[in-house]
Amino acid sequence: VSRADAGVRVWALPGLPEIAPGDDLAALLAAARGAPFGPGEVLVIAHKVVSKAEGRVVSLDEVEPSPRALELAAQLGKEDPRHVEVVLRETAEIVRAQRGVLISRTRHGFVCANAGVDASNAGEGRLVLLPLDPDASARRLRASLPGRPAVVIADSFGRAWRHGQCDVAIAIAGLAAMDDWRGRSDSFGRELHATCIAIADEAAAAADLARAGKDAREPAVVVEGLGRHVVEDDGPGAAALVRAREEDLFG
Amino acid sequence: VSRADAGVRVWALPGLPEIAPGDDLAALLAAARGAPFGPGEVLVIAHKVVSKAEGRVVSLDEVEPSPRALELAAQLGKEDPRHVEVVLRETAEIVRAQRGVLISRTRHGFVCANAGVDASNAGEGRLVLLPLDPDASARRLRASLPGRPAVVIADSFGRAWRHGQCDVAIAIAGLAAMDDWRGRSDSFGRELHATCIAIADEAAAAADLARAGKDAREPAVVVEGLGRHVVEDDGPGAAALVRAREEDLFG
Repeated sequence: VSRADAGVRVWALPGLPEIAPGDDLAALLAAARGAPFGPGEVLVIAHKVVSKAEGRVVSLDEVEPSPRALELAAQLGKEDPRHVEVVLRETAEIVRAQRGVLISRTRHGFVCANAGVDASNAGEGRLVLLPLDPDASARRLRASLPGRPAVVIADSFGRAWRHGQCDVAIAIAGLAAMDDWRGRSDSFGRELHATCIAIADEAAAAADLARAGKDAREPAVVVEGLGRHVVEDDGPGAAALVRAREEDLFG
Repeated sequence: VSRADAGVRVWALPGLPEIAPGDDLAALLAAARGAPFGPGEVLVIAHKVVSKAEGRVVSLDEVEPSPRALELAAQLGKEDPRHVEVVLRETAEIVRAQRGVLISRTRHGFVCANAGVDASNAGEGRLVLLPLDPDASARRLRASLPGRPAVVIADSFGRAWRHGQCDVAIAIAGLAAMDDWRGRSDSFGRELHATCIAIADEAAAAADLARAGKDAREPAVVVEGLGRHVVEDDGPGAAALVRAREEDLFG
């Protein structure tokens, strides 16, 4: 028995060029797709290319570290206090600063290492920031893409008690953030109390599996088979996934 | 351009019956597959059917709540102190007990709600526990399945700062837990410092997307296209994903 046709298919869009500030990302994605996106398709795109297209890139040359950045860099053993300065500018609240690791709550409410500021694949002497308003970026992309696919913007986040990183959704347009089974019944008719599946995060994780690797420049991935979670309205975005600070269950 | 053939395909195995203690799960999975698993295939299976086959089911009738369970149940507003008693028996350390939620570190080192003890799809008056040694369960399944696919046992875990649950790997046999890029270079030749992708967790998340729903009894999912992460040896299992208590970055 094979039901490969009925399941979920995930594949990377080939041929996307290196993205620079000001590039028309939607046009480049449309060209890479070659045909309109199909109904029910979800485009998952690494935040880094969105940030680059939007000019959310900082040259370390132009950064003057504050006393606080110098102090934190020394405390954490970070080589470049200018990098720490950029992280602090993107940070609403420092969640942890210990053992060489700086965990921030960003202005969007995401809790992640270095406030999402990343030097990898940024180019020499440059840092890539998270988009200013990722959900707005996702909505703009969706509106501009032929076939109007659902759009998820993804980043790799660490986890509190587990090694390794998983891609999660930092922005969503047109896909349900969650599939909420609370109040529905299980297969024995018993009410399910706490089952709320983070569909968009699982789609981001699935998309990451289809990338050949971090050095392979395959930032855009198509996920097919999630049509029942795709919605006409853009929806509340990844903002719906952020727990309010006072609701933290684990942190 | 379509590269659906080159990507990752995820599909649920149809026709698996309700599992009872003592059932030969490997034989039932082999029958549901209908042909030997292909090379490079990963079988992702919900822990609940593994636990049921192994008899890791408790009848509430036979549980006498301890004073501590009675106290915690009252404090958290839990209806059934016997349920809390079972959670405490599966708990190595209580991480949080507040606002109606009990977060435990299990004996395996997993941090999750209710120590993984679950009443949904368990049957009236019964609770399903996590397997005693999930990695050993995965290795046994792998050895017994025709074609010897990699095996991941999955459960749905909540996250510290995000709403909703994602499936993660609580056991692995024959799949790399992580794809470790530390020390390798990005596309600009810059060394990547902290990129270590939790492949098995992403596979568990992808598999969850292919289930029709919590009430649809599709606990077994095949993931194709991860052959480069499949290994001949069973490997260290999901134990490799557990951060030591003193290494917690966020918690």
